[in-house]
Amino acid sequence: MSKIRIGIAGYGNLGKSVVLGIGQNRDMELAGVFTRRDPSALECEKAYHIDRAKEMTDDIDVMILCGGSMTDMPEQGPFFAGMFNTVDGYDTHAKIPEYFDAVNKRALESGKVCIVSSGWDPGMFSLNRLYAEVILPVGKTYTFWGKGISQGHSDAVRRVKGVKDARQYTIPVEEAVQAVRRGEMPELTTREKHKRVCFVVAEDGADRVQIEYDIKTMPDYFSDYDTEVHFISEQELKSEHGGLPHGGLVIRCGRTGKNGEHSHTIEYKINLDSNPDFTANILLACARAAYRLNREGISGAKTVVDIPPAYLSEKTGEEIRRLFI
Amino acid sequence: MSKIRIGIAGYGNLGKSVVLGIGQNRDMELAGVFTRRDPSALECEKAYHIDRAKEMTDDIDVMILCGGSMTDMPEQGPFFAGMFNTVDGYDTHAKIPEYFDAVNKRALESGKVCIVSSGWDPGMFSLNRLYAEVILPVGKTYTFWGKGISQGHSDAVRRVKGVKDARQYTIPVEEAVQAVRRGEMPELTTREKHKRVCFVVAEDGADRVQIEYDIKTMPDYFSDYDTEVHFISEQELKSEHGGLPHGGLVIRCGRTGKNGEHSHTIEYKINLDSNPDFTANILLACARAAYRLNREGISGAKTVVDIPPAYLSEKTGEEIRRLFI
Repeated sequence: MSKIRIGIAGYGNLGKSVVLGIGQNRDMELAGVFTRRDPSALECEKAYHIDRAKEMTDDIDVMILCGGSMTDMPEQGPFFAGMFNTVDGYDTHAKIPEYFDAVNKRALESGKVCIVSSGWDPGMFSLNRLYAEVILPVGKTYTFWGKGISQGHSDAVRRVKGVKDARQYTIPVEEAVQAVRRGEMPELTTREKHKRVCFVVAEDGADRVQIEYDIKTMPDYFSDYDTEVHFISEQELKSEHGGLPHGGLVIRCGRTGKNGEHSHTIEYKINLDSNPDFTANILLACARAAYRLNREGISGAKTVVDIPPAYLSEKTGEEIRRLFI
Repeated sequence: MSKIRIGIAGYGNLGKSVVLGIGQNRDMELAGVFTRRDPSALECEKAYHIDRAKEMTDDIDVMILCGGSMTDMPEQGPFFAGMFNTVDGYDTHAKIPEYFDAVNKRALESGKVCIVSSGWDPGMFSLNRLYAEVILPVGKTYTFWGKGISQGHSDAVRRVKGVKDARQYTIPVEEAVQAVRRGEMPELTTREKHKRVCFVVAEDGADRVQIEYDIKTMPDYFSDYDTEVHFISEQELKSEHGGLPHGGLVIRCGRTGKNGEHSHTIEYKINLDSNPDFTANILLACARAAYRLNREGISGAKTVVDIPPAYLSEKTGEEIRRLFI
C-alpha cells in the first residue's frame, strides 16, 4: 500500500513535531518541508523553499500548515487550499467562520479537502464541547486551559521593559474545577477560572517592582487575573521551564429526570509534556482523514466536527468494530 | 420545521428515560411506545402493541430499540432495520461484528440508517478509545467502569441461595487509576482494575457466611475480583441504593518525541446519577444523526465512529463553528 505523502509548511516547533509524528504512523511518509528561509539552513532532509510547493502538487497528498494564525495562515490557508488537501490549526477563535469561508471557497474550486482549526483547542476540545452538549442538552460547559505555557502571554511578558526572558503558565483554579465537577454549575469570572504565573529573568539593574507592576496591570493579558511574578536566573529558566507542557479540560454538567433531579458530568482532560508534539499528532490524524475523504470525491473546508471519526484511523471498519467498539 | 418523530421499542428503565429525553430536545417528538405487554397497562400515552409497528412506518422517523441485548435485540435489530431508521445500544461486545452485519444487510435492503451499539460503552467510550489512539499511536488505553450499579452482577447476587434482594457496585481501584494517570502504563490484572461491592438483603434465617462465600467464589462474576459483601435491611437497600448511578473513564497514555521522552494522557470521564437517562440521551442524539443521514440518501448499519459529529447536533454548521470550535 502506498503511503500518504505529507508536506509541512513552516518549520518551527510545530513543524518539527509533525516530522517526528510521521514516524509514529506507518501509513505516512514525509514528502517535503517548505520554508521561507534558506532550505539548506534547515537541519532537515527534504527541505524546499516555499515557492517550490506549487511545482510539487503531484508529490504531496496533504500539506500541513504549521505557520502562525496571526499573519501566516490567513494568507497561506486559502493559498494552499488552491493546490493541496490541507490541515491546519488556525486558532483565532473569533475569526474562524471567516477563515473557514475563505478556505472553503478555494478548496471547492480546486476539489481538495481542507481541515481547518484542528489541534486540541480548537479541535479535540471543540469536539468534546459538541458531543457533551448533544448528550446533555440541559446543562453548562466549562473549558479550562493548563497547566501549561502560553506562548502569547510569555511574549507579552518579554515585551515589558527590563525583562530579558520569561515564561508564563496558565493554571486552572482548582476550587473552580472542583465546583464544576460537583455539578454545581457555578457562574465563574475570568479571575475565578484561571490564574497566571510568570517566571521572569530581569535585566541587570532593572526595577523589579516596576516590572511586577507592569505585568500585573497589563490589560487583556493579566489585569483580569490573579497573577504571580517570580524572578529567577536565566539558568533556572532554561533548566526548569524549557519545555512546552500544556493541558486542560472540558467539563459539561447537565441535568435529566422528570424534575431535573439527576446530575451528570462529562469531562475530557488532557495532560501534555509537549504541546507541539500532541498538536502535530492530531493534525496528522486529520491529514489521513482529508486524504481519504478527498479520494472519495469530497471537497471543501471541514472542521473536526465534520469528520466521521473512523476516517482518522488507518484501521478498517471491521477492525475498528472489533477493537474499539 | 417538522419534528423528528421518535418511536420507542420496549418500555423498561431505558425506554422511560428516552421519553423524558425527548422533552430535552426541541426538534423531537414522541410518536409511539411499542410493547409486548398490554399497551393499556403502560402509564404512557401513545402506547401500542409491538405488532402494530409495521403499520406505522409512515409515522415514525427513527425507532429506538430499548430491549435487552441478550435475547431482544438479536431478533428486533434486524427486524426493525427492515422498516425503520433505528438506534440501539447493543452491548454484547464479542458479538457486535456479527450483529452489525445482520442489521446492515436488512438496512441496505430497506434503505434505512441503523446506528448500532450506541450509548456510553459501547458508544462514547468506543469513540474516545478511537480518538485517543489516533492521536497517540504509541501508547496504551485503559477503560475503567464505575462507580456504578451493574445490573448483571446484581442479578447474579440475587440468584444466590438465601438472598432476598441485592445491589452490586463496580468500582475502579483508585491506585490503578492514579498509576495510569501518571503515565506509568502499568499491566493490570482484572483484580487490580476493579473491585466489587455488594449490598445484600438476606432472607430470614439465611446462612450469611454461606451467602458471602457463594458470592465471592462465583466464577466469571466475582472470583477474579476483590469483593466486599455487606448485609443490610430491605429498607436501607431501597433508601440508599435505589438509584442507577454509573460512570467510568477511558484513559490513554502515550509517548512522543525523538526518544519517547514526552508523556501525554487523554482522559474521558463520566459521572452519572442515572445510567438510563444518560444512555437515552446519547441514543436520541444518534437518532437525529440517523434521520439526517437517511434524508441524504444514505443507508446501512453504522456505529458512532461512522457519524460526523455535527450530525448529532440540531445546530447548523455555521452555528457549530461559531459556538463550539
